Amino acid sequence: MNAFDLSFAELRARRNNKWSRYGSDVLPAWVADMDFAIAPPIQTALGHLVAGHDFGYPLRNGERADRAIANAFERRMKSRLDWTVDVELVQPVADLVQACFASVVAFSDPSDSVVLQVPAYPPFRDAILDNGRRMIEHPLRDTGTQFALDLDALVRLIEPQTKIILFCHPQNPTGRAYGMEELRALAQVAIDHDLIVVSDEIHCDLVHAPLGHIPLACVSQEMAERTVTLSSATKGFNIAGLRCGVMHFGSQRLMQRFHQRIPRKLLGQVGITGIDATIAAWDESQPWLDAVKQHLLEARNHIAERVAKELPAARMYLPQASYLAWIDMSALELDEPPFDFFLEKARVAFSEGASFGPQYNNFVRLNFATSREILDAILDRCFDAARAFQRRRRGSNDPATGDAILQRHKP
Amino acid sequence: MNAFDLSFAELRARRNNKWSRYGSDVLPAWVADMDFAIAPPIQTALGHLVAGHDFGYPLRNGERADRAIANAFERRMKSRLDWTVDVELVQPVADLVQACFASVVAFSDPSDSVVLQVPAYPPFRDAILDNGRRMIEHPLRDTGTQFALDLDALVRLIEPQTKIILFCHPQNPTGRAYGMEELRALAQVAIDHDLIVVSDEIHCDLVHAPLGHIPLACVSQEMAERTVTLSSATKGFNIAGLRCGVMHFGSQRLMQRFHQRIPRKLLGQVGITGIDATIAAWDESQPWLDAVKQHLLEARNHIAERVAKELPAARMYLPQASYLAWIDMSALELDEPPFDFFLEKARVAFSEGASFGPQYNNFVRLNFATSREILDAILDRCFDAARAFQRRRRGSNDPATGDAILQRHKP
Repeated sequence: MNAFDLSFAELRARRNNKWSRYGSDVLPAWVADMDFAIAPPIQTALGHLVAGHDFGYPLRNGERADRAIANAFERRMKSRLDWTVDVELVQPVADLVQACFASVVAFSDPSDSVVLQVPAYPPFRDAILDNGRRMIEHPLRDTGTQFALDLDALVRLIEPQTKIILFCHPQNPTGRAYGMEELRALAQVAIDHDLIVVSDEIHCDLVHAPLGHIPLACVSQEMAERTVTLSSATKGFNIAGLRCGVMHFGSQRLMQRFHQRIPRKLLGQVGITGIDATIAAWDESQPWLDAVKQHLLEARNHIAERVAKELPAARMYLPQASYLAWIDMSALELDEPPFDFFLEKARVAFSEGASFGPQYNNFVRLNFATSREILDAILDRCFDAARAFQRRRRGSNDPATGDAILQRHKP
Repeated sequence: MNAFDLSFAELRARRNNKWSRYGSDVLPAWVADMDFAIAPPIQTALGHLVAGHDFGYPLRNGERADRAIANAFERRMKSRLDWTVDVELVQPVADLVQACFASVVAFSDPSDSVVLQVPAYPPFRDAILDNGRRMIEHPLRDTGTQFALDLDALVRLIEPQTKIILFCHPQNPTGRAYGMEELRALAQVAIDHDLIVVSDEIHCDLVHAPLGHIPLACVSQEMAERTVTLSSATKGFNIAGLRCGVMHFGSQRLMQRFHQRIPRKLLGQVGITGIDATIAAWDESQPWLDAVKQHLLEARNHIAERVAKELPAARMYLPQASYLAWIDMSALELDEPPFDFFLEKARVAFSEGASFGPQYNNFVRLNFATSREILDAILDRCFDAARAFQRRRRGSNDPATGDAILQRHKP
């Protein structure tokens, strides 16, 4: 039992998408929310706002509150990643999806194309397609031990009309945290083809030891000048609903180019609860995050061990970051997409593989940011359902059904 | 003493712009924040979020939280204004400035012009000029008893390139709540010249008895189809820092036209604290608002009486809505702008007239949403400073100075 674990009743009482979308007999392992209590400094900051009836036009330290978030980002990047950012080049945003949409509009025209590594978080696809740009899918390469950037393929895919790479680092859903060598090679391609790279680094707080996060903009000054970094405390500190993130532009020129098409005020102001929570997260909540990361690391290794032992047909690599496992269920030879199978037969809700790209229909994304007890219940249900399916297919008379599984694994 | 009054210490502890911008010897009467405790249902809703550690991706009643805000807006417009809106035509936004920027981009091109009644809230001017559109200033007419729309002048000002009227109703800073006759006449001009009207109605909850708010979109179906209504609970319920508002489009066609240039996700999602607070405001906080409005009505009349009696050279009309008095100080013949004079000599911070248009240099905007005690201190300080100035000008030997005034009126 961790200090940050919540009871099953507390989780069910949350009015979030994760615990409300499905029936009460379903264990949710989908949307990127963690089943943990919020870091105490964040709770204190929000409690302070409520106690003070203090929801007017905010100032912080004599400055506009959006400036305070830029300053907090600067401190965080310096102290955690040894990256020196310029607070003048920080633009607060509500969320990373908004930042992607705005970047696509700012740095490309409707006839242009945008590269996206796949599998990909669905809103990235929307940011390209909803804005009438063409999407160039750039599949991650499965090396047999990990997912990797296939830079030779990337060079072949780039067209004269290609203007942007929408990059996700650490990558969602695969959990890849790219190393310096891969980032340098990507940077060279971007420089050679005069591309802007929009680098979503919102999972940067969740890179697992012994690796560390390397911001793309740190590869070289030349690369920084064409990099828009997207960051937030929402993933690491579980406050996505408060809607607060930042864009950082690698040069004044890049920011000016952005604002020529996207005036600041078109983006809207960030709410004060998001700002105060983010500042409390970045400045004061590292002890909470350290404990959570230790738990996540152990959970990740535990899943990998159990999968290898109990359902070896399910193929997964150890995610290097975050609390998401990208699992290939092809070898199970289910007669329906694994998302549907596990929802129906195991009453477990994963994220659907196909939502990350239609070719990933046989994958699921497992969110393991929960207690060990719930995680084991999720795995038990899934393994039992998969075994029952295989017994049925082999003509076995074993009567195991979804209902029987449910009975056994109610947390 | 009202139930919603806060102590001077509580106000000073607020980290809002209103009470932090100036020195501790200055009484703030500027930015549109009310010096009152927040409505209990809003406090309860926010306390519930904090207690539940519930800041993940939100659902409300099985729907996305932004849908919940559209539903709450529909209920509110129906119950308070007898206006039936279509929830499908509601777009949540962070703030009204964002909505103005987006509307100007969506409904005009860079070579086009946009009409703005002046004096005007400064961000309206930014929404026109920052987007490279031409601004057509349309001065409100001073009828001798009130400010009014000058529709003959409007017709003369409209050019072939004019596409939009940015309309503010009730009007900020004058507090005019337009009546049906004026709205009908405005609608006719808009229809005749094929203009879109973006109608900022965020002060609609604060129209004083016996008047009531009439949404521009209610004038006629023909007018509704070219009206974008902007609304929020931020002004009526004092929660501007939570950043939540709505745009309502008078027809499907108008909304589609908007989204052709401004995809939904470019606007960003609204934070859950803004959503829950707004729903609690609209659905449950009317008793609080009724009490606040009664206090504001009495405060408005009190100011008008004291000004007429003690500083008759200051000219003001009774604002029909909100807690802002627009006061013409020209006849005082001060030797500096009244904003500077009262800040220096009375230690009272008004909103500066010139920020609503350079020609309004001799006006100030007084925010009277405070306790009677603080309001009287503000008026005492200002009247004393004005009298001292006049005595000095007449060569009187009276030694009254700003310091002496301060001494007398410390709340």
